[in-house]
Amino acid sequence: MSVKTSSQYSIIVCVESDLDSAAEALVSQSMEALGCAYISKEVCGDVVQLKINCPDSETQQKAVDAVAAMDGTSVVDWWDRTFRMHEGGKISTNTELHAFNPDTLAMAYTPGVARVCLAIKENEAVADTHTIRRNTVAIVSDGTAVLGLGDIGPKAAMPVMEGKALLLREIAGVDAFPICIDTSSPSEVIETVKRIAPSFGAINLEDIAAPGAFEIEDTLRKSLDIPVFHDDQHGTAIVALAALQNALKVVDKKIEDITVVMSGLGAAGIAVAKMMLSAGVGNFIGVDRSGAVHKERDDLNFAKQWLAENTNPDSLSGSLSDVIKGADVFVGLSAPGVLTKADVEAMAQDSIVFAMANPNPEIQPEEVEDIVAIMATGRSDYPNQINNVLAFPGIFKGALSVGATDITDGMKLAAAKAIADGVPDTDLSPENIIPSPFDRTVVDRVSEAVAKAAVAEGICRS
Amino acid sequence: MSVKTSSQYSIIVCVESDLDSAAEALVSQSMEALGCAYISKEVCGDVVQLKINCPDSETQQKAVDAVAAMDGTSVVDWWDRTFRMHEGGKISTNTELHAFNPDTLAMAYTPGVARVCLAIKENEAVADTHTIRRNTVAIVSDGTAVLGLGDIGPKAAMPVMEGKALLLREIAGVDAFPICIDTSSPSEVIETVKRIAPSFGAINLEDIAAPGAFEIEDTLRKSLDIPVFHDDQHGTAIVALAALQNALKVVDKKIEDITVVMSGLGAAGIAVAKMMLSAGVGNFIGVDRSGAVHKERDDLNFAKQWLAENTNPDSLSGSLSDVIKGADVFVGLSAPGVLTKADVEAMAQDSIVFAMANPNPEIQPEEVEDIVAIMATGRSDYPNQINNVLAFPGIFKGALSVGATDITDGMKLAAAKAIADGVPDTDLSPENIIPSPFDRTVVDRVSEAVAKAAVAEGICRS
Repeated sequence: MSVKTSSQYSIIVCVESDLDSAAEALVSQSMEALGCAYISKEVCGDVVQLKINCPDSETQQKAVDAVAAMDGTSVVDWWDRTFRMHEGGKISTNTELHAFNPDTLAMAYTPGVARVCLAIKENEAVADTHTIRRNTVAIVSDGTAVLGLGDIGPKAAMPVMEGKALLLREIAGVDAFPICIDTSSPSEVIETVKRIAPSFGAINLEDIAAPGAFEIEDTLRKSLDIPVFHDDQHGTAIVALAALQNALKVVDKKIEDITVVMSGLGAAGIAVAKMMLSAGVGNFIGVDRSGAVHKERDDLNFAKQWLAENTNPDSLSGSLSDVIKGADVFVGLSAPGVLTKADVEAMAQDSIVFAMANPNPEIQPEEVEDIVAIMATGRSDYPNQINNVLAFPGIFKGALSVGATDITDGMKLAAAKAIADGVPDTDLSPENIIPSPFDRTVVDRVSEAVAKAAVAEGICRS
Repeated sequence: MSVKTSSQYSIIVCVESDLDSAAEALVSQSMEALGCAYISKEVCGDVVQLKINCPDSETQQKAVDAVAAMDGTSVVDWWDRTFRMHEGGKISTNTELHAFNPDTLAMAYTPGVARVCLAIKENEAVADTHTIRRNTVAIVSDGTAVLGLGDIGPKAAMPVMEGKALLLREIAGVDAFPICIDTSSPSEVIETVKRIAPSFGAINLEDIAAPGAFEIEDTLRKSLDIPVFHDDQHGTAIVALAALQNALKVVDKKIEDITVVMSGLGAAGIAVAKMMLSAGVGNFIGVDRSGAVHKERDDLNFAKQWLAENTNPDSLSGSLSDVIKGADVFVGLSAPGVLTKADVEAMAQDSIVFAMANPNPEIQPEEVEDIVAIMATGRSDYPNQINNVLAFPGIFKGALSVGATDITDGMKLAAAKAIADGVPDTDLSPENIIPSPFDRTVVDRVSEAVAKAAVAEGICRS
């Protein structure tokens, strides 16, 4: 039996003495029986650490007990690797001073620092080059829509924002700091970000519920002279567009000829819609819980109202199953199980399905593997992972590198193209339409394209 | 001629070819003639870098020209070391992840991170141990009273706040991030800090003008469950008290017998007054621009009103020169030149003068070196530097280490004693009453004392 586990519920079990290969085989067997996977052993000083991936947290103790019950193994300690990794937080601050002595202190701090302060007072542009503003992004959330967990509040959102900061540093070499704001009023989020903006070179909005997220992003983009980017919207949109562009190459369809049906019209869905439309998608129909969005509906918020006016020209109404008939592309940012096998069967030939609901997609890839031409999800355990991590690190790196004051549609389209180009035409296939999140060449590709677009648009401070 | 220069106006001059010792002697001579000091040469690749300390920024170009004018030296480049050091800012953020791969990403980010988020949602205390809150301080300023530069605004304050963050990391291993707030309304500063508090384990208020600083600190201390510390007030007070305690040992006077006269009753002055009173100073008289503070004055703000009611029991009035007669200790946090030689001559025998105005003290030490028993300043180029850097790193380290919810008077007194104890009685002398800011043993001494006091007072979360 092959057990599919990930490291999210992984544990380390410390045993007193080393295991020979026969004992290891026994551990492996007993773990499989529990639905766990024995990964590796490592000798650490006096103890041996067994790494075991479990399917859920309940099974962790059972796995430990099973190891303890084996002949000749004595468990001295065990821990949950995910929680252990989060202890004390996942980022730190570092000094850029190479030596700490009276000589350097008199430049970095009093009295020398006063000269830099006065230079900024004379000319605020000096703050863009001689403070952390040059390379630092605020990761801002109010904790109202964290992952798929909903409104869990600002403190509980911190691990995600720290994770985002970690990704920016790790992938793009961009500094980032998590700011979780204790309010759920969009106007208070706006006010707070405006007030702390002197410390930052860019703002990444994250996991903020719609429709507040639209108001926050729009207002901040207008009032601040630094880039403001809501990754849940635009990061997703950019990577989805990149995937779509390559998928269309594989099935040999033109973007202006296709019909896209989208399920899920939250912040991300609307952004994907707008991005796909500006990239030239021929026909687009959005679907929410009440069915297709069209001009006759009177229950639409302002974002969906925009969609009603700019898409679905034939004013199709009805359920997802009604409108998906004959569609070329399904894009899901909604909920597991929303799309049925029959729905996919009713789509046009060479259908493309992006089932991006997290953690469980709108339809399981296994259900339709013989029907669709191309399947993509948000998951790492299937081919074609549509992951924001392909976009935001390069976007911020590029924008900061040229002192961009905004992240425009042109910069976003350039980013999407750069990501799509990350898979050479010769390598394109139904199972390879998008680079891996661990492809280290993507960030510079995106960064350069974004910087070039910003310069071409003339929106750079420097 | 010996030239007194510091690194604050230091430059590097790059010349094409190496200098022999005769040429170095010529550089040294010509620099002295300009009031500069030739420090060193270093071969860097194809060029030789000459380090030259200048007395001011105007002289920097003259020094470069003088080097260029010498036979056989060709200047290829030069830069201001202070500005160069500040390029891109002085701190960065760092990942605490030791490897970046699918295994670690599934724990640090989705899907594993959701488990830590949910654990915090269940029990907020988990945020204190499993996010950066455990070890991260916000360095908060509104830029209204930066160094001696006044109200230069939040962007111009950034280099100081970055410097403070750098010191916390370098000296105490505590993470810190600068938050400069774009408002000068105390209530808006309060509101903003309350809203961003989920990201931090402690708040350091810095360079905020009085009386707003009092309101901000008082309100935040009451409303937040993390320590809030205004370093300009309490850091200064703690180190000044430590210096006073040791100075009294040197001159063999008891704290309850002495009269302290203080000039300068801003935020720091009031804090020093309160701290010295709670440490047992017998008689205390505060002096502002209008003279001694006493009960009959009707022009006092609420902080000075408190002073009028709790000090100067004889209601002495008049100028500094009037009230300093017979005093044992002068403490200055005001302006250069406020104290005259005649004033010091009128003090009691074995007088102690702490002239802490920055960058120029209330009286130059040279003027009174034969009159005073002990002289201290805020400067690094005289003995007995009263420098906050002796206090705040250990205070935050200690408070965070035990999850303290406040920094109480007891913790501050413990910190002062720990700093004073940093100079063993056998080493005490008129020129050695306080440890050096570069004494690396002070931070743990202070941290342990502060943590112990917090635990004894029962104000710890953990």
